Formats: sequence, C-alpha cells, structure tokens
Amino acid sequence: MKKRKPTIKDIARRLDISVSTVSRAIRGAEDINPMTKKKVLDLAEKIGYKKSVLAAGLASKKSYLIGVIIPELTVPFFGRVILGIEQFLKPLGYDLIIVHSDEQEQKEKECIDILLDRQVDGILISLSFNTKSDLHLRKAMEEEVPIVVFDRILPNSELPIPRVIVDDFEAGYQATNHLINKGYKRIAFIAGPEDLYISQQRLKGYRTAMERNGFGTSADLIVPTLDLRRSVGKALDKLMVLKEKPDAIVALNDPIAFRVMRLLQKRGIEIPEKIAVMGISGDDMGELFNPSLTTIDQPAQEMGFVAANLLIDRMNAMKEAKNQGKVFIPMAIFKKLPISLIEREST
Amino acid sequence: MKKRKPTIKDIARRLDISVSTVSRAIRGAEDINPMTKKKVLDLAEKIGYKKSVLAAGLASKKSYLIGVIIPELTVPFFGRVILGIEQFLKPLGYDLIIVHSDEQEQKEKECIDILLDRQVDGILISLSFNTKSDLHLRKAMEEEVPIVVFDRILPNSELPIPRVIVDDFEAGYQATNHLINKGYKRIAFIAGPEDLYISQQRLKGYRTAMERNGFGTSADLIVPTLDLRRSVGKALDKLMVLKEKPDAIVALNDPIAFRVMRLLQKRGIEIPEKIAVMGISGDDMGELFNPSLTTIDQPAQEMGFVAANLLIDRMNAMKEAKNQGKVFIPMAIFKKLPISLIEREST
Repeated sequence: MKKRKPTIKDIARRLDISVSTVSRAIRGAEDINPMTKKKVLDLAEKIGYKKSVLAAGLASKKSYLIGVIIPELTVPFFGRVILGIEQFLKPLGYDLIIVHSDEQEQKEKECIDILLDRQVDGILISLSFNTKSDLHLRKAMEEEVPIVVFDRILPNSELPIPRVIVDDFEAGYQATNHLINKGYKRIAFIAGPEDLYISQQRLKGYRTAMERNGFGTSADLIVPTLDLRRSVGKALDKLMVLKEKPDAIVALNDPIAFRVMRLLQKRGIEIPEKIAVMGISGDDMGELFNPSLTTIDQPAQEMGFVAANLLIDRMNAMKEAKNQGKVFIPMAIFKKLPISLIEREST
Repeated sequence: MKKRKPTIKDIARRLDISVSTVSRAIRGAEDINPMTKKKVLDLAEKIGYKKSVLAAGLASKKSYLIGVIIPELTVPFFGRVILGIEQFLKPLGYDLIIVHSDEQEQKEKECIDILLDRQVDGILISLSFNTKSDLHLRKAMEEEVPIVVFDRILPNSELPIPRVIVDDFEAGYQATNHLINKGYKRIAFIAGPEDLYISQQRLKGYRTAMERNGFGTSADLIVPTLDLRRSVGKALDKLMVLKEKPDAIVALNDPIAFRVMRLLQKRGIEIPEKIAVMGISGDDMGELFNPSLTTIDQPAQEMGFVAANLLIDRMNAMKEAKNQGKVFIPMAIFKKLPISLIEREST
C-alpha cells in the first residue's frame, strides 16, 4: 500500500533531461543552468523527492544539517526568510536547526558554538542589533563551516563571505520619494541604532531623496530608536515638540511604523491627513491596520532562497578545491535584492 | 583570558544544596522539589552553565536534540511557546530542531519522519488545522521516541501521551462573560473548522456563558472559518446580513479578530460603539491596533516550558523502566493552563 518514493530518475524523465543533470542540480552544483536547476528543485519539492538523509550522511560524513541564526523568533519577516531557506534546502535533503540570538551579541556567539557542536554543514545568520564584531563568524570559517549572512550584516567586516541584503539605500530612497510625490514636505525619519547598517543605508536613501528634491534635511527631523520595540515613544516625542512638526514620517521598519501609528492616534492625530506614516518591511500585518500601512516590500522569502543557494555554492566550491588538492580561496559576495512599493492608506 | 566554564559545583555552592540534587535537577529527574528544580535551572541559565553536548551524547548515545513541530512559522504565538521550550531545555544541554507543517497533515507526517531520521530524543508537536489521525504520533512512540502535544491536540486520540493546552472552554466562557458584563446582548462567535478541538471548546464556553446569562444561542450567530487567515470575510458577511445584527463578536483567536476589526472599519462600523470585538490569544500586536484589541491571554511561554518539562519527565521515566528491566507503561496526561483577561479598547 505504501506509495513508492520518488527518485531522481522520475524527475529526469518528467523534465526530459539527464539523470546526471538532475543529480547535479540536486547536489547544488554550480555549472548548471539556473533555470534548469529551479525546474528540478521545484519538481523535486512538488513530488516529494527526498534524499535518504542517513545514507547520504554516512557516505559523505556530512550531517545534512544547516544552522540558521535569527535575531528574534517572533518577527514574521524572519519566518518568511526561513520559508525561502527551506524551499531551497529541503529538496536537497537538508534539515534546519533554528536558533535565535535574542538581539544580543553574546547569545549570538553561543549560537555559533551550539551549531559547531552539532557539526552543521553550514550556517545562515542574520546579525543581532548590537553585534559589533565578526570574530564568531571567523571562528566558523576556521572550522571549515561555510557561513552566509543575510539581511543584517556588519558593514565594515572584511570577512570574505557571501551576504544577501535588500537594497536598503533604495528602500529609504523610494519610501521618501513616494511621500514627496504625494506632496509631503517636512518628512521625518525614525532610524535605528547608529551602528546598524540597514539603518545607515535607509537613512542615506532618505537624505538623497530629500536633497535631490530640494528639501535638504534638518537634523531635528532624524531621530534614532535603540531597538525594534522600545524607545519609539521617545523618538516620536522629539518630533512632536518641534515648532514645525513633520507632515510625514518614514519609519525604519514596519514594527516601528505600527507603533508610530498607534502613538499618533492616541494623540488624536489623523493619519494620513495630519501626518502620513510610511514603513519599510512589507509585513502582511500592515494590511490590517486602520489605516493600512504603506510600506516598501522586502522579498523575504526570496532572500532566504538566495542565501541558501549561496551557501550550497560555497560548500560545493570548498569541496571541489579539496578534491583537487587546492587551498580554497573564499571571496566576498554581495547580493542586493530589489524592493518595491506597496501603497496603502497611511500616506 | 578565557572565563572558566561554570560547573554544577558552582550551582550547588551558590544555592547551598548538594551537587547530586543539582545534577538530578539538571538531568530532569522527577523525584525533586519543583521549586528547587526551578531555582537550579534559573541559575544554570543565568551563569551560562552548559553540559558538554558531545561528551554527554557520546556517553549516553543520546542526540540531545529535541524536535519541535509547529503549524506555522510566522505566528507569534508559536514563537513565544518556543521561547518557553528553550528556557527549559537549554540549561539541560538540549538543542532544538524546529520544523513546520504549514497546516497540512501530510507535511506534518513528513516532519515526524525527518525528526526520527535525525534521531531526536523527543518530539514536541502542535497539530495542524487539518490533522485527523494520530498514526504518525504512534509511529514515534513505536520507535521509543517520547512525544508531547501542545496547544492543538486531537480530542479523540487515545494515545497515552502528555498534552498541554490552555483552558479553552474557560477562554470562550470568560471572553463571552466579559462582553455580557459590558452590556452586550447579541454576541456572535466566529469559530474555526468544526473538527478543531480548541474551536469546539471555546464555542462550548461561549454557549455556556450565553445560556447561564439567559441569552440562549441562536445558530445564526455562530459562523465558522476554514482556517486562520482565509474566509474571515465570508464569515463576517453572514453576520452582517442578519436582520438583527450582532452587537459584539468573539473571534476564535487574535489573528481572526484583527481581520474582523479591519473589515468592520472598511464598512464604516465603529468599534466598540456599534460592534465590540474580542480576541483570544494575547498577541502583543493587539495593543497597537486602533482600537486596541481586548483579548484572553494564553500563557504561551509557560505552555512551552511545561510541555518541555513533561517531555523530559517522560524520557526519564522510560529510561528508569529500562534500567530496571521493566516494560514502560505510558500514561495520558492533560495539563490545562489558566488564562486571563486583557481588557483594552475594542469592547
């Protein structure tokens, strides 16, 4: 009664390509047409193809475990990234260990130790808000465990590793430009901590849009928050005591924008009539607020897919160098994913 | 320069108890005062005590991996449960593999296979919306992998396993009672799929509260949804075409309540003036809506902590039976956690 398990032969037959092409696609080889690869992986997922983990692991001494470190478990954005990671890795027979740093550099270091202890084949990580050093990432590399950083990166790190981010400059630029096109003139920016790369980039985009449109940027319109959740109230207070109040606010991300909307509404300020609010994240939740939140969509799931792909590429390149008796020379790779505007009611 | 790693001796000294008590607490033994256990685990967490995973694993042939299966990755409630699971298991040296069923019974079965493949020491699972059979849970038991079900259980399953739920009857009862106390009379209930145990229980609580207060329940005030996200619009439509519209709505959970609020506002219906809305979940997000959502708080983190505790208890009991050459007799255990009202602006 048991259904026969699908094999790579089934996939080859259905796509009318060679078994070896399927096998290479599934092993994540680099010398293969990306479209073909995608077709193979999609079909593999669809028909439920799964490598025999134990057999494969025993033969190759691999664990077929990939570690994923995210800053927070309860942020939907990271849930969406993980969906993309799974979409790429599951058909290849990998499973995920998901750990979180609770936005703390110290815990993030422990996460790396846990994953190395578990002998994962690779690590995907999004850094905590307060991570200042890349020594723990270097440690993984020294143990020959490849690592890919997504979304939250260290800007000044010179570690030769792949990084996947959205185009944060463009996100800040488009958010601000959208408000300018709508006729808003005094546009404020609620930023993150000064050291946070995504905040720096989005702020740069904001400044550029303001300057290109002849508005200039006054320092009092730019206020920082210390983290995603706390201190949004304080930041907003600074804007609301200004003699000339802003007529629009760009928030670093959607969770901050949700809080800004709530606080403005508590003060009886109409959105967008008195002050427009703009987020950056593309959280589904934004659709449910009243007014619904205009935002810049980040392709979270695609980010996970691309990051996982880069990790497998790196693993294969390391293996190939080893097979050829060569020293593996790691390279830095930057992938920037495009963003798009979701216009709703808050602007 | 390296800080000395804390040991169980440090914990014993600081709590002024014996090393063997600490060891038993950390191994999760059952014959120990729960308060002492909690003190030990809290301190272990605080000072960063961590069993050497590999050493411990090699000696005991355990993997020190626990599998967690949740229905959806992007639901904050489950993120909070996982925090509680980690809080209990990390000090004991366990790591988690988190997988998700995407609310599909078939994928849930695959999740069990993946975790058994990985030779996890135990499994914590919250069932998908459409899971109808417990054969996959039985399979884990047959492989001597203990299993604990939390939040979403199969009501009619006779498997002798531990289950942790909130008091869903009480949640429905208190939600409805709160509205009655506020003066609402025609109270509707937006339920989940008919088979869903938590929905049945909450609905029962709703009915009981209505009847005890002399309102009775008319069938047209109870409308089902097919899942958490879709079909809320249709359910609401059914209520809004009634001759006598409801003056308050209890939603099965907060995500449904958020959608109900949005849809009412799109129709220009004021909340709570025209219709009050009540959720059940206690999502933090509810505080940010306008109006903020009154809800029944579920102790998500505590649920995770208790479920993990029950799992370790079961593992220990199985081991002890084995040591004594006895057959292990599994028992069903039900833990119901208490809920509480969070009153906000939507009622």
